[in-house]
Amino acid sequence: MSNTVTPWEVKGKIDYDKLIEQFGTQKIDEPLIKEISDLTGGKLHTMLRRGIFFSHRDLNLILKDYSDGKNFFLYTGRAPSLGMHIGHLIPFVFTKWLQDVFKVNVYIEVTDDEKFMRNPDYSLDQTMQWSIENILDIIAVGFDPDRTFIFQDTEYIKNMYPVSIKIAKKLNFSEVRATFGFDNSSNIGIIFYPALQIAPTMFEKRRCLIPAGIDQDPYWRLQRDIAESLGYYKAAQIHSKFLPPLTGPEGKMSSSSPESAIYLSDDPKTVRKKIMKYAFSGGQATAELQRKLGADLSVDVPYQWLYYFFEEDDEKIKKIGEEYSTGRILTGEIKEYLADKLNRFLEEHRSRREEAKELIKEFKYEGKLAKEMWSKTIV
Amino acid sequence: MSNTVTPWEVKGKIDYDKLIEQFGTQKIDEPLIKEISDLTGGKLHTMLRRGIFFSHRDLNLILKDYSDGKNFFLYTGRAPSLGMHIGHLIPFVFTKWLQDVFKVNVYIEVTDDEKFMRNPDYSLDQTMQWSIENILDIIAVGFDPDRTFIFQDTEYIKNMYPVSIKIAKKLNFSEVRATFGFDNSSNIGIIFYPALQIAPTMFEKRRCLIPAGIDQDPYWRLQRDIAESLGYYKAAQIHSKFLPPLTGPEGKMSSSSPESAIYLSDDPKTVRKKIMKYAFSGGQATAELQRKLGADLSVDVPYQWLYYFFEEDDEKIKKIGEEYSTGRILTGEIKEYLADKLNRFLEEHRSRREEAKELIKEFKYEGKLAKEMWSKTIV
Repeated sequence: MSNTVTPWEVKGKIDYDKLIEQFGTQKIDEPLIKEISDLTGGKLHTMLRRGIFFSHRDLNLILKDYSDGKNFFLYTGRAPSLGMHIGHLIPFVFTKWLQDVFKVNVYIEVTDDEKFMRNPDYSLDQTMQWSIENILDIIAVGFDPDRTFIFQDTEYIKNMYPVSIKIAKKLNFSEVRATFGFDNSSNIGIIFYPALQIAPTMFEKRRCLIPAGIDQDPYWRLQRDIAESLGYYKAAQIHSKFLPPLTGPEGKMSSSSPESAIYLSDDPKTVRKKIMKYAFSGGQATAELQRKLGADLSVDVPYQWLYYFFEEDDEKIKKIGEEYSTGRILTGEIKEYLADKLNRFLEEHRSRREEAKELIKEFKYEGKLAKEMWSKTIV
Repeated sequence: MSNTVTPWEVKGKIDYDKLIEQFGTQKIDEPLIKEISDLTGGKLHTMLRRGIFFSHRDLNLILKDYSDGKNFFLYTGRAPSLGMHIGHLIPFVFTKWLQDVFKVNVYIEVTDDEKFMRNPDYSLDQTMQWSIENILDIIAVGFDPDRTFIFQDTEYIKNMYPVSIKIAKKLNFSEVRATFGFDNSSNIGIIFYPALQIAPTMFEKRRCLIPAGIDQDPYWRLQRDIAESLGYYKAAQIHSKFLPPLTGPEGKMSSSSPESAIYLSDDPKTVRKKIMKYAFSGGQATAELQRKLGADLSVDVPYQWLYYFFEEDDEKIKKIGEEYSTGRILTGEIKEYLADKLNRFLEEHRSRREEAKELIKEFKYEGKLAKEMWSKTIV
């Protein structure tokens, strides 16, 4: 099975240890976890405890800067789409937690320009409209409106253009071609775009920590090559695994196969139906066999979704794992359990999303950090 | 002698008929000149009468749109430099005349971003500072502050970014590489930049006329390939010859050899000295020979500067040509005549440049057209 991970393609069953080796990143090991725990007074997000965020670059330096009072800032982003699914929330949920425990600024770039330029079928009107919709979902995650700046590239371009062209001047076609797999038929906008994705790592003269899927790593490798020559820090990253698609343990959820994902807008009936019908099970073919042999948790998507995201209680997930793998609970039961959890989560999410409509101005323009950002040019 | 004309290199003695053929443009012929004259009530700028503007694309369509009341607009630009010389003024002087006689809007793009990205040695601070200085020289040419918008890319980027990325999406690396001679070591900013130079051709939903050196033609060929698919007109152009450098009839004045050019800031003594010492003469080696054989006007730079630019009186230039080519006047005399003309021109220019300091706000932000442009986004 091939194993392709670029910013646009995640295919095949993913060997995360191999990715660490391939990308040359560091594993998040026990001592590092302990260091975080010491700094946060014992708090550790589920996704850290369970190794969903599994790899990093310079996270140790981020923690040191935090201890030394130099502080750091967080940066993540979103290529807007018609609808966001559960998997899209992972970096945001985790970034929000980091903001809560470290009380730091968060910058969220919404790349309406990139999405438009990369896809022949999309109009700029569409990607700008999707940006607004996606921003509501992002706000619903619970960021601090005075410490978070959410911006669309087409809106904030003037303020970040000077630093972006300084970055662009340092990167030639060979470098971006090799890094992103561009070729001579790539359009000149998408060739320039890496400069705009790198720019927010230079929004402060502090170290930047980027929580994101490991597929975004190529951007940060380029950033790390040039940041210091521009008077900024090399960006640090913390990489997450991909929540497996409903339909099987391989690859990443995709908007092109709606049954592979739960969308944030899916109603309770749809959620239940998708899970019951499509969720790939590690359980046995019959109840009798399941009672006898138990489920294979390593390929069971409902179990993995609970483990990655929806069952935060360590005791409970342990118990579910034991009972399911030994056949004491059946596939139908674990699916029901996930469907309930998911529907509760989505109900709360959508209620916060409604409130976000009142808050969007704060995050984009009027909150403390947003105001600061609009009043300055990044050079 | 090689004959290279790209946006960055003009070398060798230029065969303008060959350029028309090479670039596939149209010659500005007598019927077209007559058409202009009919529309302007008999007014024809020296540079039209004398064929300095010698080539065009779609100028006939521009004149038709003007006759039909659809109107058109003018666009030209400047890559900012430490100092502007006499040759740099040609497109501006002519554009100003077109604005006067046709009463149309003029857009002037000052490409602080491009200049920075193209030159390893320049800082963005430098090119932004040069922009302001160059804009004063441009304003001094006499544009109408309510019909002219002068903008630096780094300032106006937000308003023109949407149309620029629509343009960028239509151009791939192969196309810009072939057109501009980029290669794999070209930086990704300069690869994107053609989109920003093309954008102002779409500032109005009318036909755009671009007075510029023929060396800028590659940009407009790309523009003409894609404009209609974006709902805009193919840009029309009117191309000027290059004022020959002081030092000889070949190539273009260059900032890297200061003796080849008269700078707008050169004081009268410097002007006189440069002309006397460096101006390439078509006259004979001695006064005696000159009286006997006369000068070769086709290589005589002082005569050509008078013809191209500084002696607007047709009777006078005819008389000078006759007397000089038949040896009745000597090289020293024609040089003196040019030095006087130039110094008068520069004195007036510098006085208007002082006044421009009060006007710069009008042209950039507060004039009628500037205000309109800042209130809209080009899509």
